[in-house]
Amino acid sequence: MTQLLGGIEAGGTKFVCAVGDETGAVIARDKFPTTTPEETLQQVYRFFDQYDVAAIGVGSFGPIDIDPQSATYGHITDTPKLAWKNYDFLGALQQHYPQVKFVWTTDVNVAAYGEYLKGAGVGKQNICYITVGTGIGVGYISHGQLYGGRSHPEGGHIMMHRAAGDDFAGVCPYHGDCLEGIAAGPAIEQRNGKKGHEIAPDDPFWQIEAYYLAQACMTYTLTFSPDIIVFGGGVSKQAQLFPMIRAEFAKLMNNYVRVPDLDQYIQHVKLGDDAGIVGSLLVAEDAMK
Amino acid sequence: MTQLLGGIEAGGTKFVCAVGDETGAVIARDKFPTTTPEETLQQVYRFFDQYDVAAIGVGSFGPIDIDPQSATYGHITDTPKLAWKNYDFLGALQQHYPQVKFVWTTDVNVAAYGEYLKGAGVGKQNICYITVGTGIGVGYISHGQLYGGRSHPEGGHIMMHRAAGDDFAGVCPYHGDCLEGIAAGPAIEQRNGKKGHEIAPDDPFWQIEAYYLAQACMTYTLTFSPDIIVFGGGVSKQAQLFPMIRAEFAKLMNNYVRVPDLDQYIQHVKLGDDAGIVGSLLVAEDAMK
Ligand SMILES: Nc1ncnc2c1ncn2[C@@H]1O[C@H](COP(=O)(O)OP(=O)(O)O)[C@@H](O)[C@H]1O
Ligand SMILES: Nc1ncnc2c1ncn2[C@@H]1O[C@H](COP(=O)(O)OP(=O)(O)O)[C@@H](O)[C@H]1O
Ligand SMILES: [Zn+2]
Ligand SMILES: [Zn+2]
Repeated sequence: MTQLLGGIEAGGTKFVCAVGDETGAVIARDKFPTTTPEETLQQVYRFFDQYDVAAIGVGSFGPIDIDPQSATYGHITDTPKLAWKNYDFLGALQQHYPQVKFVWTTDVNVAAYGEYLKGAGVGKQNICYITVGTGIGVGYISHGQLYGGRSHPEGGHIMMHRAAGDDFAGVCPYHGDCLEGIAAGPAIEQRNGKKGHEIAPDDPFWQIEAYYLAQACMTYTLTFSPDIIVFGGGVSKQAQLFPMIRAEFAKLMNNYVRVPDLDQYIQHVKLGDDAGIVGSLLVAEDAMK
Repeated sequence: MTQLLGGIEAGGTKFVCAVGDETGAVIARDKFPTTTPEETLQQVYRFFDQYDVAAIGVGSFGPIDIDPQSATYGHITDTPKLAWKNYDFLGALQQHYPQVKFVWTTDVNVAAYGEYLKGAGVGKQNICYITVGTGIGVGYISHGQLYGGRSHPEGGHIMMHRAAGDDFAGVCPYHGDCLEGIAAGPAIEQRNGKKGHEIAPDDPFWQIEAYYLAQACMTYTLTFSPDIIVFGGGVSKQAQLFPMIRAEFAKLMNNYVRVPDLDQYIQHVKLGDDAGIVGSLLVAEDAMK
């Protein structure tokens, strides 16, 4: 009989839980808003108590502690969501399911992993995944492995060369006009007085958005050096952004380093909103090997 | 008898060649300016022909091709030093020394490796090395290994949030006001009308320099997530920069992610100008294991 695997995509807005098989195919899933840890974990337990899973991949919002040597390994650390601050998320899961093997990483890392094995990154080894939604997060797969250093990337908070004439102050509570502070959904809403999906596709604003996202692609290219950059998240549903990001990227880079054909290099997430949950099943599957 | 190892630190300005033992100790060395490939390689051969080395670590200026699957693996690629553009550097060395084992990486990666095993990074696993000299280059050791993705990092060319009131146009021929374009030696000289070592340590200019170098540390922290950031190169000899970089870094990051004590986290290169050549001997040593 096929072994069942579990996945948890623990986002700051909502949780997705799924049970699947070793191909990453989802057999059952549930979705609920992220409230307090206690309330949200009760929902998680209600879902997984129905199944006998061997391993669960957890992709969590963060910052999180991913250092196995650390006393706070498995905790959510400095999040502005105060109820979750310093919460021992992995510890709670392990206590409830002592027989289950857990893989603990970021929500964006599991999405990157999903795209690596089943999405736009198939056949590639180094995948940079960027979600542009309520926040901006960066996941990275390096030579087929979840990337981590001392901690995980927090590439959404890099500082930006400001677009000519753009003096929007930015909304990041930590950094003001970091990438997330000027280009994520809440920044878009604040600078335009309406939400992203209400802004016309030919509005000149998208040129500014494309400039910042292209510049982010430049920074990740010059640091990580991926084979492909995949955008997910609500804002990336604006399809007109992609040609603009590629054009701005080409201008910014000015051929300094060789990159693949830009239609291949900068892409929209192929698994769509399922990248994270599929990726969390796949990291669970890998943990069983 | 101890096996002899070789190292080549191939910089854009000068080459350093050395022969050493497995501890990274230098037994003999030579140094000469980087001219044409033919002329420079003759000097390299003249040096190494005197010794029977088992392996040579080559840390080259770049960009270089480090993808073993690529047809141009071992070449210098798009350098502005035209005589070296598309030059098959590794191929030439291998042809001259067919019995020798070569390790091929960037000049900044070998310096990072030297600091990892013998310098400021001893005991750490993830080392970010930044040289600030004629250019700005970034080397990275990830979990004890030379980092590479599709290619190697080119972190000196990231775009910058400009310091308030600073409108210096930048001198990078590719990007204008990228980090290298506004903060490397030639930029310092152009904006101040004198070379870095001629500028008084209490000149307000250093505050601007520190802001950009701190911001670079922020970007590398949020992408690579190193255990330590080590600065080398001529400009980093300005010791007054270090407290200023640490203070600007703390302000910019605003405690968003946890980093080590900043006196430990941001340091001057411990091996000094020897980091690269010691590192190239050490990567050669590792290749023999
Ligand atoms: N089609 C769209 N076009 C532009 N912006 C969108 C779109 N859909 C959602 N957004 C914006 O993205 C943000 C929500 O991001 P999303 O990725 O859906 O969820 P989250 O980041 O909370 O997981 C909101 O700020 C929303 O306004
Ligand atoms: N002590 C110093 N203080 C400030 N700038 C310096 C110092 N020494 C060298 N520089 C500058 O650094 C650049 C040379 O960098 P260096 O690291 O010595 O060599 P390279 O980068 O060519 O290998 C020059 O622009 C020089 O003006
Ligand atoms: Zn921020
Ligand atoms: Zn540049």
